[in-house]
Amino acid sequence: MVIDMDERLKKQLEFSLEIDKEKNIFRQTHLSLNGRNENDAEHSWHMAIMAYLLREYSNEEVDIAKVMLMCLIHDIVEIDAGDTYAYDEKSIETQKRREDRAKERIFSLLPDDQKEEMISLFDEFEEYETAESKFAHAMDNLQPIMLNNSNNGNDWKEHNVTAAQVYKRQNKTALGSEKLFEVVDGIIKENINKNNLK
Amino acid sequence: MVIDMDERLKKQLEFSLEIDKEKNIFRQTHLSLNGRNENDAEHSWHMAIMAYLLREYSNEEVDIAKVMLMCLIHDIVEIDAGDTYAYDEKSIETQKRREDRAKERIFSLLPDDQKEEMISLFDEFEEYETAESKFAHAMDNLQPIMLNNSNNGNDWKEHNVTAAQVYKRQNKTALGSEKLFEVVDGIIKENINKNNLK
Repeated sequence: MVIDMDERLKKQLEFSLEIDKEKNIFRQTHLSLNGRNENDAEHSWHMAIMAYLLREYSNEEVDIAKVMLMCLIHDIVEIDAGDTYAYDEKSIETQKRREDRAKERIFSLLPDDQKEEMISLFDEFEEYETAESKFAHAMDNLQPIMLNNSNNGNDWKEHNVTAAQVYKRQNKTALGSEKLFEVVDGIIKENINKNNLK
Repeated sequence: MVIDMDERLKKQLEFSLEIDKEKNIFRQTHLSLNGRNENDAEHSWHMAIMAYLLREYSNEEVDIAKVMLMCLIHDIVEIDAGDTYAYDEKSIETQKRREDRAKERIFSLLPDDQKEEMISLFDEFEEYETAESKFAHAMDNLQPIMLNNSNNGNDWKEHNVTAAQVYKRQNKTALGSEKLFEVVDGIIKENINKNNLK
């Protein structure tokens, strides 16, 4: 943009335009009703609303605005680093390095104070230690399993995912919400019974 | 889902799955880099992050968590009512009736207390009176003009939109943020100069 603007506002708008690219990062999950692959922006939107509506099931009290913002920004690094499928062991090995580089480049578009704030929030999510991080992760786990269950487990079938792999990932859901882990556990058992999961 | 769950949680999860359909509601706006049409879920995600990062430019102090939630849910009614293009006078006539019906059906999937809360938040957005509503609307106006500007005004050219029409819509942006209206005004003038807008 050539229009005259303060440097600060200009940086904020550059970042805002840059993150538009997250809508082109596609995940392995498919939309309900056997839809197309979901992208990161949609996934994040969905997680943030679910976090708000399901906050009563968090094990610990959470600052829900912080959880929602965490959900909204947690995948921005994938603009550069790409989506890493939860059951792709090889990609997971290089994930941290790829995402650290992306984090630095993308958040550096913001004014320094907001860069620091966003990186701190992203790191908090990744570290899985605070109540907000654990509940945001519970959403990151519940949202795709809900969609996949609605599609009769097709995402698992496509990738030959086993029940043990799903439990390994979903066990951490209980760190954020024991109650929502019960939902997840029910979905897994139902899909084992239906032979959607080995 | 056949798994055993409390009625309340079951309703919350049914609603959560239902809103997945918002990802299939496409808008007239195109993604940056001359991308495909944007959908409502992506648009809402983008607005919520921008609201957080640009909150310092709100004319009035706002409860930013409320603004973000408003941004996230403001287009859910379009699952049934469809997207109404801002410059389609004919569709705008029937918009309220279509959206009221949708609002009742979709939010009724939630437990009563959350249904009331979501409808109240949606109505507050529509009524354009509170500080939060005005700032959320500023995002609803700024986000697409930012994308369209990045694509050299192609969305306007495609629909023969005039500068007068854009000003009519964007004048209300100033109700939420005088500062961001200056940005919008700069974009409009620049696009008039480039003959992207008549």
